[in-house]
Amino acid sequence: MQIILLSGGSGQRLWPLSNEVRSKQFLKIFNEAGGESMLQRVLKQIRRTCAESTVTIATAKKQLTLLKKYLGENFDLSSEPCRRNTFPSIALAAAYLHDVKGVDADESVVVCPVDPYVDDNFFAQFHMLAAQISADSPLVLMGIEPTYPAEKYGYIIPQTADKISRVVSFREKPNRIDAQKFIDAGGLWNGGVFAFKLGYVLNKAQKLLGMSSHTELAKNYDALPNISFDYAVVEHEENIKVVRYAGEWKDIGTWNTLTEVLESNTTGGGIIQIDEASENLHVINNSDVPIICMGLKNAVVVAGADGILVSDKVASSYIKPFVEHLDQQVRFAEKSWGTFKIIDSDDKSLTVKVTLNRGSQMRYHSHERRDEVWNFIAGKGRVIINGEEKVVRAGDVVEIPVGCKHTVIADEPLKIIEVQLGEDITVEDKILWQVMN
Amino acid sequence: MQIILLSGGSGQRLWPLSNEVRSKQFLKIFNEAGGESMLQRVLKQIRRTCAESTVTIATAKKQLTLLKKYLGENFDLSSEPCRRNTFPSIALAAAYLHDVKGVDADESVVVCPVDPYVDDNFFAQFHMLAAQISADSPLVLMGIEPTYPAEKYGYIIPQTADKISRVVSFREKPNRIDAQKFIDAGGLWNGGVFAFKLGYVLNKAQKLLGMSSHTELAKNYDALPNISFDYAVVEHEENIKVVRYAGEWKDIGTWNTLTEVLESNTTGGGIIQIDEASENLHVINNSDVPIICMGLKNAVVVAGADGILVSDKVASSYIKPFVEHLDQQVRFAEKSWGTFKIIDSDDKSLTVKVTLNRGSQMRYHSHERRDEVWNFIAGKGRVIINGEEKVVRAGDVVEIPVGCKHTVIADEPLKIIEVQLGEDITVEDKILWQVMN
Repeated sequence: MQIILLSGGSGQRLWPLSNEVRSKQFLKIFNEAGGESMLQRVLKQIRRTCAESTVTIATAKKQLTLLKKYLGENFDLSSEPCRRNTFPSIALAAAYLHDVKGVDADESVVVCPVDPYVDDNFFAQFHMLAAQISADSPLVLMGIEPTYPAEKYGYIIPQTADKISRVVSFREKPNRIDAQKFIDAGGLWNGGVFAFKLGYVLNKAQKLLGMSSHTELAKNYDALPNISFDYAVVEHEENIKVVRYAGEWKDIGTWNTLTEVLESNTTGGGIIQIDEASENLHVINNSDVPIICMGLKNAVVVAGADGILVSDKVASSYIKPFVEHLDQQVRFAEKSWGTFKIIDSDDKSLTVKVTLNRGSQMRYHSHERRDEVWNFIAGKGRVIINGEEKVVRAGDVVEIPVGCKHTVIADEPLKIIEVQLGEDITVEDKILWQVMN
Repeated sequence: MQIILLSGGSGQRLWPLSNEVRSKQFLKIFNEAGGESMLQRVLKQIRRTCAESTVTIATAKKQLTLLKKYLGENFDLSSEPCRRNTFPSIALAAAYLHDVKGVDADESVVVCPVDPYVDDNFFAQFHMLAAQISADSPLVLMGIEPTYPAEKYGYIIPQTADKISRVVSFREKPNRIDAQKFIDAGGLWNGGVFAFKLGYVLNKAQKLLGMSSHTELAKNYDALPNISFDYAVVEHEENIKVVRYAGEWKDIGTWNTLTEVLESNTTGGGIIQIDEASENLHVINNSDVPIICMGLKNAVVVAGADGILVSDKVASSYIKPFVEHLDQQVRFAEKSWGTFKIIDSDDKSLTVKVTLNRGSQMRYHSHERRDEVWNFIAGKGRVIINGEEKVVRAGDVVEIPVGCKHTVIADEPLKIIEVQLGEDITVEDKILWQVMN
């Protein structure tokens, strides 16, 4: 059995902690085991329940370095050149399995999002889904027994209340009254888990996208339609079966649901004070400044380098358009070599705190439109400036004028306050060079 | 008539925008006239209504530079060596008027806090208060007609409902039920406005503190009891009159009341986004990062360099102990010469953004336990380093090792990213020198 984990979400719903390059699946916000990320948690569960299966992670190219940092190199990755909805993502991953990994078109595939918060039994169902795939039912879904008339999920209406049933129809995210009607009619939540033979999706790709080879799909990825697998495939398939799942299930893709599974009401490194009048309040402080909360009920407060969210828990599910509207510069990012954080931005300058992990280094580069000054505040390493290597340690200052080629190698973990100065500071202003001593 | 404005509050109730050195009376949060502070507003009103009176501002020594910056040198200031409650503060100001300014002991004095938000008519009452002072009623108060059974004010119970009445008794801050009883009994809010002859308070100081000269009071100020004028004097005075005031009155010393008088629901330089489900929400963003608020009702959100407050409006009145508990370093301060703001703090380093106004300069100084690096990011000026003067402009870097005497003069407005490096960085580590070229 092949498992495709869809891990390419933009993480906007968990703003300000997740962003384009620091997606939600990497947030180490589960207290257990000293900070485990969603992705690590799900992978461990799959390893326990589907030991013989092969996992492929479908993810955006932008997130590859971070993914490798967290998981090492021992995973198959379907790298998406840009962000598209689930149909292109699944098609590309299927083509990758077939063309690159040589998986047979007749092998079973289960697709699963990275954000369900469930017990192991959820993943154990995958075997049953795969076993139900047949010419008579080429597509098998997981249906979750609803616990309340949720408005944020799609509903699957099964023919019977058996563990395995044919699907009669689908309903898009309803209002509360309709949601109750669907539940009364035996409806199940659509958890975004799909099972099919590899060839099934390759055929759909050929038919709907006009191509099914990995080379073609990767090359034309940005031109593919931005549509979901549900919309493109599921809603048009006549013969679908659903496997019913009755355990606890939460998609922790929004603050509302994520906070439900956090062990503590307060997390993050920053100071947090909450008065006794507050109830059902979660505060996550990843900022440098203290937070005081008073008299807040059913709310979530999150502060990070990119911004501050204060929201009623239910309302927090609707954050996406507000984040899109911000269109802001990413102020904090975790890279394979360390982190960067913008600590001051002014008209013609940007001040950035850069940390480098032991043994890591920046790429050798220069800038055309800005000077930089490196103020080393901790650690020890070496800089190469226009070909000349020099040892640096805390207290050293290195000036890097426009055009000057430079890099730094961290022999011990390094911390730098980098002051950038120029009329037009952008991340694009970077020319890469080969180091030649 | 002498007016003493009590302007020495710690401003903890308006955290995080006000702090020890940036007290509430300087916050320019009133939109009208492009940002007017409480103090400026009140002084303008007194000038219009009590043109012939002399105003003395009683304030903490720590706030003197900022006060002079905002108001110039044309005000009489009673400078308090440390923070004490209203009785020591009023006694010191009275002694200052008598001993330093030569005011006669028989002259009328009206004491008023700096934070009432009222129309001019409030201050016009001062004449009537002063006129009611007599041997028979040496103390005259302002009583504000209540508009609701407030729990946060003291109540004055007058003998009659006349404009001027004798006082029967006082009631401390009651609960809501008692507050309603006091109102039914004709009670008035105690607005903290007191009128008396100068000699009256000097006698009280002599009697209760054992001293009444300005020299003695100033010298022993930190040993004086930390008690309020109400507690020390008003509650023990048999013969008090009250002048009834019926106009709008708000003490804008808490976020709850302050937000009521703000013209806009959003202020501050930072990006703010609020969803349509939010109601009666005020957001003040003085931080560098955006704030998104969703589904919040009757709340106030304030972000500044010192921290983040998220509070139900009513609950925000009770913030003081939480702020006291923080006991944090001041991260932003406005000085006579400019501003400083901590933008990063690490184990053995502190990074500070310093701005200097045109023509201003730091004092010539050195440090014993830290190196500093000045990264100039805007403006033009001169540094003096160990006696040597040098022109500096944006892009220049000046290294200042331990023991090195240094200062900077801003010929144009200057901006500096100052990186401090040392084991034990404190504001106390500063030795002042005379510049000798």
